[in-house]
Amino acid sequence: MAMNAIGVDVGGTKISAGVVTPQGELLNEVRYSSKGSTEELLDNIARAVREVREGYEVSAACLAVPGLIMADENKVIFSPNLPNIEGVPLKEELGGRFDLPVTVENDANAAAWGEFRFGAGSEVDHLVFVTLGTGVGGGVISHGILMRGVQGAGGELGHMTIHATGPRCGCGNRGCLESLASGTAITRRAREVAAERPDSALGKIARERELIGEDVTRLAEEGDEAALSVLEEAGLWLGIGLAGFVNIFNPEVVAVGGGAAKAGELILDRARKEMYLRARSPSRDLVEIKSATLGAESGVIGAAALARDPKTGEYVLGS
Amino acid sequence: MAMNAIGVDVGGTKISAGVVTPQGELLNEVRYSSKGSTEELLDNIARAVREVREGYEVSAACLAVPGLIMADENKVIFSPNLPNIEGVPLKEELGGRFDLPVTVENDANAAAWGEFRFGAGSEVDHLVFVTLGTGVGGGVISHGILMRGVQGAGGELGHMTIHATGPRCGCGNRGCLESLASGTAITRRAREVAAERPDSALGKIARERELIGEDVTRLAEEGDEAALSVLEEAGLWLGIGLAGFVNIFNPEVVAVGGGAAKAGELILDRARKEMYLRARSPSRDLVEIKSATLGAESGVIGAAALARDPKTGEYVLGS
Repeated sequence: MAMNAIGVDVGGTKISAGVVTPQGELLNEVRYSSKGSTEELLDNIARAVREVREGYEVSAACLAVPGLIMADENKVIFSPNLPNIEGVPLKEELGGRFDLPVTVENDANAAAWGEFRFGAGSEVDHLVFVTLGTGVGGGVISHGILMRGVQGAGGELGHMTIHATGPRCGCGNRGCLESLASGTAITRRAREVAAERPDSALGKIARERELIGEDVTRLAEEGDEAALSVLEEAGLWLGIGLAGFVNIFNPEVVAVGGGAAKAGELILDRARKEMYLRARSPSRDLVEIKSATLGAESGVIGAAALARDPKTGEYVLGS
Repeated sequence: MAMNAIGVDVGGTKISAGVVTPQGELLNEVRYSSKGSTEELLDNIARAVREVREGYEVSAACLAVPGLIMADENKVIFSPNLPNIEGVPLKEELGGRFDLPVTVENDANAAAWGEFRFGAGSEVDHLVFVTLGTGVGGGVISHGILMRGVQGAGGELGHMTIHATGPRCGCGNRGCLESLASGTAITRRAREVAAERPDSALGKIARERELIGEDVTRLAEEGDEAALSVLEEAGLWLGIGLAGFVNIFNPEVVAVGGGAAKAGELILDRARKEMYLRARSPSRDLVEIKSATLGAESGVIGAAALARDPKTGEYVLGS
């Protein structure tokens, strides 16, 4: 009989641990801070898992963490938003603390798996999942299998070059999708546009205080042309990236999630048009570009689903 | 017992059919023209298969064709270099002519599978194969599985945008990898450089006759700076594309084949450096970028290997 599992989403500011059924239902959830030393971080992860599992039978746990994972070693080797987790042998450090098999996975890959099993991709075998947050992450399920790559470092969709001479990216490259369509890129561009158009609603706010991403979405929804142009531009760059993914993966669904995806159709409408202009038939005709559906829970739910089959998710085929 | 199979590489000018053992050995090969009407093309394919199988026991055949394939329908829907094959229901038209199961596959996907089973990727589970010819094609094997996508149209690595404002591509997009690093792009750029540097060896030939791709490689090997700069530039663009693939697929090997790949290290050396500058650890540190090893036979050999498992190649896992 399939058992419940625990998914732990370890973010830059907080840890969310949840007990999830084999049907993707979240039964219980607890949250702790992820700030502090490595020891405090590990303590809080262990505490969250112990607390959340009380009263439930669970078979395994999986940690979803932001950064580059060496899946075979259960180790995070690079995590700019959570540096205290780098290099810690998580299986050894945590496995002993609560007597459960523990695996680790990149947060965007886990979220992709959540959307594949229980969200925007639950009806298909080929899903590209893109998160627009501070950065741009992603995960790909092709032929029902999570594309981890040989070291578990695959799926870095945000770091495909789409404009060779584009802005410098946090990763050191230039013109990555992330450098042009992330929440950070949207805010940077909004500040530039606000300076160019001081009489726009965007410009007026910028004269009073520092603009944040939420301002852009709100003002765009209210019809401010300047704010709309910023989101359209992000949608255009997103569409250029998606066209490449559509040509490479020939997926049934592209699901877009993450904080900046709250702007929804204000970004996706332009992204769809640009994808269609640039991608090839028959892939561009079949693919559906839509919002992810699990929201902030995709990491916890996807990690729990992965905990049941830490290898490559192949168990889904034929289940 | 595993049986021999027939691979048929249907190119823009000729048809090559070969009997291939389960170990990838080519036992017999025949060639026919692929010019003429649809009827002549089908006749020549059938003739090639009948002729090549004489005296051999074979279990299946697979056709590798240039263009976009609808794998489920065994149909080619778009093939600029072989328009007479578009829309023909190949299984029905050909299957009856020689009493064998027949499938159809994109030529670059078939070649990728050949390199995966018997060539540059025979030791690994994660291979990205890129062909530099008139266009840029490719195929990806990830976790031992050929990434066909839902319609069999995946793996179009040449049509990822790497420079949003780059040259117009044959596919209608701008700045595709193909528009910057294909044999066609190299020749176009060589003509420009020849005009800018009339006293170079490249410039001197261009004053006498139309430059072709082979001139660039030959003059670069002889040390002509102008020709070398053209190949370096192609290598740079190739490296930008490969960096994206390395970040997305985290492969063990990237194999580069096709006609323009004859320039070998003159292109690959620069491509490796650019990939390393732009891709992320740990993927960029592990991956090996090298020449494909099967040469022009990769299509025949790969198609024959695919004929044995037309679904997704999953049979290889665990064999």
